[in-house]
Amino acid sequence: MKKNLPDFSRHLLFPALFLLTGFGWNGCSRKIEPVPEDDTLDFVYQYSVISALQAGVFDGNLPFGRLKTKGDFGLGTFNRLDGELVIDQGNRYRVRFDGTVKDVSDLDTTSFVVVKFFKPDTTFTVNTPATRLDSLQKQIAGALPANQLYAIRIKGRFPTVTARAPAPAAKPFPTLTEHLMRNQYLFNLTNTSGVAVGFLVPKYMEKTNPPGFHFHYLSDDRKTGGHVLDLTAGSVVVEIDRAQGYIVEANTHAGYNRVKLESGNDSLPVSF
Amino acid sequence: MKKNLPDFSRHLLFPALFLLTGFGWNGCSRKIEPVPEDDTLDFVYQYSVISALQAGVFDGNLPFGRLKTKGDFGLGTFNRLDGELVIDQGNRYRVRFDGTVKDVSDLDTTSFVVVKFFKPDTTFTVNTPATRLDSLQKQIAGALPANQLYAIRIKGRFPTVTARAPAPAAKPFPTLTEHLMRNQYLFNLTNTSGVAVGFLVPKYMEKTNPPGFHFHYLSDDRKTGGHVLDLTAGSVVVEIDRAQGYIVEANTHAGYNRVKLESGNDSLPVSF
Repeated sequence: MKKNLPDFSRHLLFPALFLLTGFGWNGCSRKIEPVPEDDTLDFVYQYSVISALQAGVFDGNLPFGRLKTKGDFGLGTFNRLDGELVIDQGNRYRVRFDGTVKDVSDLDTTSFVVVKFFKPDTTFTVNTPATRLDSLQKQIAGALPANQLYAIRIKGRFPTVTARAPAPAAKPFPTLTEHLMRNQYLFNLTNTSGVAVGFLVPKYMEKTNPPGFHFHYLSDDRKTGGHVLDLTAGSVVVEIDRAQGYIVEANTHAGYNRVKLESGNDSLPVSF
Repeated sequence: MKKNLPDFSRHLLFPALFLLTGFGWNGCSRKIEPVPEDDTLDFVYQYSVISALQAGVFDGNLPFGRLKTKGDFGLGTFNRLDGELVIDQGNRYRVRFDGTVKDVSDLDTTSFVVVKFFKPDTTFTVNTPATRLDSLQKQIAGALPANQLYAIRIKGRFPTVTARAPAPAAKPFPTLTEHLMRNQYLFNLTNTSGVAVGFLVPKYMEKTNPPGFHFHYLSDDRKTGGHVLDLTAGSVVVEIDRAQGYIVEANTHAGYNRVKLESGNDSLPVSF
């Protein structure tokens, strides 16, 4: 179901979102009973887990060609952390540390990716000179049923975007934090049009997928983008797609089994 | 691939497992490169998440009839926590707090369940008077590649099993811990034959599915069983099936969206 709300001015934005919360917006999401028939097309698919990426498992065996059956929308990284991935409307882009944007081939490989077939349940328009990302996120989250996983697409004008992309890592791989500390390149974009693709991830997924909001950006001219550290939204359309669930595929690269995650293997029997 | 190892005596058990670790057992698991073709049949499927069950979401909308396409092996609970579920070789059993064991109908519903189509990669035999559960688990875990999710089936003679089942909960539902504190019934079983079905869950799934080992037991005469708190294994066959990944379906019951989990909805943008 899709509901287009009229544009509203800056001063009406937050009160209007507040009203939506109370009176109608939740009603736009899918009917939640009974359980829908089997359809993993409405699930988020991810390859590997964030705790592995954080621990330095920067290689994976998943070629992007295989992702076509998993989703047409999403974000992620590349082997060796060589760029930030944006997938929007089935098109795949790699934003590299030097600021270039390239198409992604079916044979390129990834060590962490999160995708979905994007079918928005809810659409609304924001029309302001500049809404800060944290304010926008707070309003979006406050209006959505809790404990769910959402794909979110924000398209329009962005007065400012602070994005980043890492330079590729060399072996032996450090942790993600260590790598980013020394090899993260920032792009301060002003007055671009583009799309932010991302997810709102529930806290119970925290070691699997970073909880909270997570966006990657791509400008409409395909000349810049990256992992979003901050932005301000001008006139934008926000589309939200609640997932029925998610699929996690274990990283099949040899490095995955060698890394020391908190494995649970040494834990005692469950006694809850 | 299946490898049957010869029985070994009590004194040989631990050295033998140790040798397996170093020289052959790991080799019995599936080839890990490249990524297999799409086949969610080799994934664990679960409905709802343990953090919701812990918070008191004891109702779900999933009828067991729908699970037939998800797995023929597994464990879980029932709506209102009315019993412990055992699924083995496609047969479903409910162990109730009064110690009775009943078949499960397609229309019975669950608020938390974890299943897989069981296809063991590795099989070995233990033949001792009594191996303690924690020792057996330690040896099994030590011999398996880390960071993976495994289905595990232990079939044979059990000198002792300490199992439990909760009485059903009444609304308003308390937390799981509160309910078990007052409504957990213990069964001390001696010299039974039966099967323990369960999983070894990696730590990164901890708010989704209890990390570590988790078994439910059913005696061969179908007269007793429950959630395993402790056991000793006599002569048993241990079968292990590594999953390619897992699927989590969100609980669709209205109570799920109302409960306060750590939702992540109020979190700040990701800045890793």
